[in-house]
Amino acid sequence: RSDGSRLWATIHETARFGGTPKGGINRLTLSPEDGRVRDWFREACEAAGLTVSVDALGTQYALRPGRDMSLPPVAFGSHLDTQPTGGKFDGVLGVLAGLEVMRTLADAGIETQAPLLLVNWTNEEGSRFAPAMMASAAYAGEFTTDEILAKRDGAGVTVAEALDAIGYRGGEAVGERTIGAFVELHIEQGPILEAEGKTIGVVEGGQGIAWFDGTVEGFESHAGTTPMPRRRDALLGLSEFALAAERIALAHGPSAVATIGEAGILAPSRNVVPGRIAFSLDMRDPRSGTLDAMEAELRQAAAEIGERRHLSLVLERIWRKEPVPFDPRIVSAVEEAAEGLGLPRRRIISGAGHDACNLAGRVPAAMIFVPCKDGVSHNESESATQADCAAGADVLLQTVLRLADT
Amino acid sequence: RSDGSRLWATIHETARFGGTPKGGINRLTLSPEDGRVRDWFREACEAAGLTVSVDALGTQYALRPGRDMSLPPVAFGSHLDTQPTGGKFDGVLGVLAGLEVMRTLADAGIETQAPLLLVNWTNEEGSRFAPAMMASAAYAGEFTTDEILAKRDGAGVTVAEALDAIGYRGGEAVGERTIGAFVELHIEQGPILEAEGKTIGVVEGGQGIAWFDGTVEGFESHAGTTPMPRRRDALLGLSEFALAAERIALAHGPSAVATIGEAGILAPSRNVVPGRIAFSLDMRDPRSGTLDAMEAELRQAAAEIGERRHLSLVLERIWRKEPVPFDPRIVSAVEEAAEGLGLPRRRIISGAGHDACNLAGRVPAAMIFVPCKDGVSHNESESATQADCAAGADVLLQTVLRLADT
Ligand SMILES: NC(=O)NCCC(=O)O
Ligand SMILES: NC(=O)NCCC(=O)O
Repeated sequence: RSDGSRLWATIHETARFGGTPKGGINRLTLSPEDGRVRDWFREACEAAGLTVSVDALGTQYALRPGRDMSLPPVAFGSHLDTQPTGGKFDGVLGVLAGLEVMRTLADAGIETQAPLLLVNWTNEEGSRFAPAMMASAAYAGEFTTDEILAKRDGAGVTVAEALDAIGYRGGEAVGERTIGAFVELHIEQGPILEAEGKTIGVVEGGQGIAWFDGTVEGFESHAGTTPMPRRRDALLGLSEFALAAERIALAHGPSAVATIGEAGILAPSRNVVPGRIAFSLDMRDPRSGTLDAMEAELRQAAAEIGERRHLSLVLERIWRKEPVPFDPRIVSAVEEAAEGLGLPRRRIISGAGHDACNLAGRVPAAMIFVPCKDGVSHNESESATQADCAAGADVLLQTVLRLADT
Repeated sequence: RSDGSRLWATIHETARFGGTPKGGINRLTLSPEDGRVRDWFREACEAAGLTVSVDALGTQYALRPGRDMSLPPVAFGSHLDTQPTGGKFDGVLGVLAGLEVMRTLADAGIETQAPLLLVNWTNEEGSRFAPAMMASAAYAGEFTTDEILAKRDGAGVTVAEALDAIGYRGGEAVGERTIGAFVELHIEQGPILEAEGKTIGVVEGGQGIAWFDGTVEGFESHAGTTPMPRRRDALLGLSEFALAAERIALAHGPSAVATIGEAGILAPSRNVVPGRIAFSLDMRDPRSGTLDAMEAELRQAAAEIGERRHLSLVLERIWRKEPVPFDPRIVSAVEEAAEGLGLPRRRIISGAGHDACNLAGRVPAAMIFVPCKDGVSHNESESATQADCAAGADVLLQTVLRLADT
């Protein structure tokens, strides 16, 4: 068993890096705050006897030798970056519970057959640079390292520049290192486990995700002199489109979601009819065909609104992640670990994207969920109990031992 | 008659201060570009034999003596600040045609009975600091100088700080200087004159304006895991409100307009349901009662949307300018000047706010409009012909001579 109170203290210790007045964390990937928590993480891993290295996309790997060094390591971890309105648990729990597993094994003097590898993946959140989970995608071969290094944030800074700015462009080639299996512990970020009184979610897979960049182009004109019917108002076009996206998601049943998370008027002014807007669209469903259908309907809505309002409404798909099934053997290992610990559990599909979903494209992978309060995440009030975090760490420890000793 | 080609050259000469690649001007009030055009204006006035002074809100006054210095001067002018997507004529025409009047009188050796005063009012546009036309409002006693000095832009900079930054906080007390009458030449910024083939609009008054600051407060949550019906999406609330504002304006007849010109999600992220939005609302009509009715309906819409979507949707009215009738004597002087020059003309109401609307609260005032292409303004493509600008300057010259010699 892991030490739940040490894990809890560690979670709160790192919450100071980017901590917000409302008790959340604003630690965008590759920001100075992210640099500081990475430094802390390296030191904590070294203090636990691990050997830390960094790859060309900044991902940190902390290795614990096994008896048989010819075996590929059993890996686990998550991410330490957060949303601008992030909480204390999203990603953090998976990394720090992984550290707790390493500390527990060291304290108990346990050596595993296979080596163990704790990973902090760069830019899981996708808030500063799109897409989300990009370092694990590059690890799994979905992007080249150069493609990722060239991605830009809203201010035009590239991933390469941001890595250099905090000194985290490492020497190891991305994907060079072999991994035997990957297990990720995470808060559920949804309401199901809490509602059903389950402590552990045995995650069977992740839903599909499509991301779009959109623009609405109308015509700037005077707010006092332009008659309503003559306007080509980009904000009214976006407003109709946002409501159409909501209707389309609702029509595809309870699992489908669509979100416009970013929307900015270019050169806004109180007395100017908005002429140009840039926005983002996030669309998800566990069924690949539903993603196709929703995209077609959204494009039709955009065309109809654009034509009627004399606007150009353009959607560019910048990312699509197909629904991911996890490896049945690793899913079973998680389930048996939870069963062995006597924890109430259920199988579940992840609504959020996770690094494990990318890893699954290359190595056997699965995930462990624990409940979070009211299912709330990507919010500073995100909350989980010490007992549930400890239970999650115990399941992670038992799963890792099962995988590393067989 | 004024020199139309000299006026045209001067308009294009000053368009370099804040000139944009698309041929417009981005010269927000009290910006470095505004500082440079003010320096240019002072030198041009001095070269034309005028005495320039600056008041405590940065307004520039250029005086030409009259035979009877006990008479209050006949004043004219407009503003040199622009919108972020401004054109070359809005405000600029009125100031530079005023300069052309002064130059023409100097060339012709004409002395008027009353002194003449050319004015460049600070912050007519209201884009950087709200409300619009704030220096002329302070001149007319609608605000104290200290109230205006304390207004802040989006970055938190006060008017006082911005004035100091470009060295334009003058020594003259605002409103201290007496003016006998005020005449402002401006492009129409609407489509009527062009559509009817009239060169001159004899402006009888300005419509009423109400400005609001609004906020929508919902709850940030995860775009992938929060079911659609559980969301408290601030952008969807704003979308419904924007469409309601359009419907309400349309329902109040062809003269009513409503515009959301600014809208910004706080801490936006692609995979976060928007939790908080700040926006602006501009609402106008020539009838005061219609402004009241529209405001009541907008508040009702905000309450209904807020309740249904579990959002708090708050509207704060930050400015209201009642409809303004201009002085019949000055309106007639404009009409007679246009008639004397044989120019096609019609009476018209201004859809935009103008410094003359504020002056009208204290001194006899009126305005002269000339057409602009397609009625387009607050857009970089704003355009007017050399002939119409020259005609407007001639009407201004003749109106000023009528007022200054009687
Ligand atoms: N776990 C998590 O919140 N990941 C961010 C990527 C996404 O699902 O939007
Ligand atoms: N003339 C003009 O565009 N003034 C700006 C103030 C307004 O919004 O009407």
